[in-house]
Amino acid sequence: MAREEETRVKLLGLWVSPFVRRVEWALKLKGVSYDYVEEDIVNKSPLLLELNPIHQKVPVMVHNGKVICESFVLLEYIDETWKHRPLLPQDPYDRATARFWALFVEEKLMKNAWIAIFSEGEEKEKAHKVAIEAVERIEEQLKGKRFFGGDDIGYLDLAVGWVSHMLPVWDEMGSTNILDPLRFPSTTSWITNFLGHPLIRDNLPPRDRMWDYFHRKREQIMASRASD
Amino acid sequence: MAREEETRVKLLGLWVSPFVRRVEWALKLKGVSYDYVEEDIVNKSPLLLELNPIHQKVPVMVHNGKVICESFVLLEYIDETWKHRPLLPQDPYDRATARFWALFVEEKLMKNAWIAIFSEGEEKEKAHKVAIEAVERIEEQLKGKRFFGGDDIGYLDLAVGWVSHMLPVWDEMGSTNILDPLRFPSTTSWITNFLGHPLIRDNLPPRDRMWDYFHRKREQIMASRASD
Repeated sequence: MAREEETRVKLLGLWVSPFVRRVEWALKLKGVSYDYVEEDIVNKSPLLLELNPIHQKVPVMVHNGKVICESFVLLEYIDETWKHRPLLPQDPYDRATARFWALFVEEKLMKNAWIAIFSEGEEKEKAHKVAIEAVERIEEQLKGKRFFGGDDIGYLDLAVGWVSHMLPVWDEMGSTNILDPLRFPSTTSWITNFLGHPLIRDNLPPRDRMWDYFHRKREQIMASRASD
Repeated sequence: MAREEETRVKLLGLWVSPFVRRVEWALKLKGVSYDYVEEDIVNKSPLLLELNPIHQKVPVMVHNGKVICESFVLLEYIDETWKHRPLLPQDPYDRATARFWALFVEEKLMKNAWIAIFSEGEEKEKAHKVAIEAVERIEEQLKGKRFFGGDDIGYLDLAVGWVSHMLPVWDEMGSTNILDPLRFPSTTSWITNFLGHPLIRDNLPPRDRMWDYFHRKREQIMASRASD
C-alpha cells in the first residue's frame, strides 16, 4: 500500500495551461495513471511552493517521491521512464528536429501570438507578422503528414498541441488571423487530426472557460500597460 | 574519400559564443573530429544563412549532410550519436535534473548577469539580485562535488561552463559581484576544477579579447538605449 502510494504519479496543474496540458496528454498516451491536483495560480498552495520553490509554477510532477518541473523536461522524463509507445522518434537527427521545432514554436509562435492579443499598432503588427511566419514554417513541416512525426501523435504534436484549441481563441480575441485555414491547409488538417484523437479530444480545456480566462487576463494586462 | 567528407562534422561558430563553446567542448570530450568555421556574426556568410535560415545564429552543426541547430539540442544529439563517454547521466531523474538546471542557469543567471552589465539604477539592482539568487541555487547543487554530475565533466558542466571564464569578465566590466568567492566557495572550486580540465583549458576564448568584445557590445547597447 505504502509502496503503491510512493510510486504513484502526482501532477500539479492548471486547467488552462498549455504546459500542463502537454504533460497530461503524454501521461495519458503512455497509459500512466496519476493524481491530478488543480492549483490556484494566484493563491499558490503551500504544496506548490514546497515542491517548486524556484519557479513556483505548474506543471510539477512527483514520481517515486522525486519532483520534476518544466514541461519539456517532463516530456523527456516521461518518455525515458515509460519506454513503451515512444513520444520522441528513435533516430538522433529526428529527435533533434522534434526538439528544435518545439523550442521554435514556443519562442516564435506562442510568445508573439500572445503579444498580438493585447497590444496595438506597430507592436501588434510586428508580433502578428512573426507569428504568421512561424506558422509558415510549421506548415512546411506538416505538408503531406497526418502528425508531425508521421502516422501517430508524438513529442512535437504534444509540444505544439495548444495551437489546435487555444490559438483559435486567441485569434478571435485579438482580431488576428494567424491561423488562416486558406493559407495553411496542412496545419488546419493537423488540427483536425490532433483534436480528433480520442485522448486529446477528452482532455481539452472548455472553449467558453478559456475565453473568459484569457479575456480577463487581457483586460488586466491592458489596464496595467495603460497605467504605466 | 567522398564518404569521409560526408560523415565529417562541420561546426559553424563564433569564438566568444557560450553556446558554441559548449558544443565544441562536447565534441572534444567525445573525441569527435570536426572542421570549425568561424562566422562573422555581423556580416553573416551565405553558408550560415543557407544552413540556419530560421535563426541565422551559431552554433550550426552539419553531420552526414544534416543540419542541427540550437546548443542544447546539439548537446543531446552529440550524446545520442556518439554514445561512449555519456554527457547526460543514465537515470531519467538525474537527466531531468541536469536539463532543469541547464535551463534555469540560462534563464535566470545568463540573462540577468548580462542585463546587469549595461543597465543602471533599479534595473541593474534587480538583475544583480536575481543573478546572485541563481548562483545561490547553483552553490547548493555543487556542495561537496567536483563537478555537477560527480567526478567528471558532464552535460550540466558544459551548459554552465561560461560561468567559469565569461562571468568573471562580466562581473568586472559591470562592477558587479555576482561570483563572490567568499559567498560561493563550492562554485569557486567548481570553476577551478572546470578550468583545470585539459580539454576545457585549451579551448577557452582569450580574456583580453573577451574584454574588448563585451566592452564594445556594452557601449553599443548603452548608446542605443540613450538614444531611445
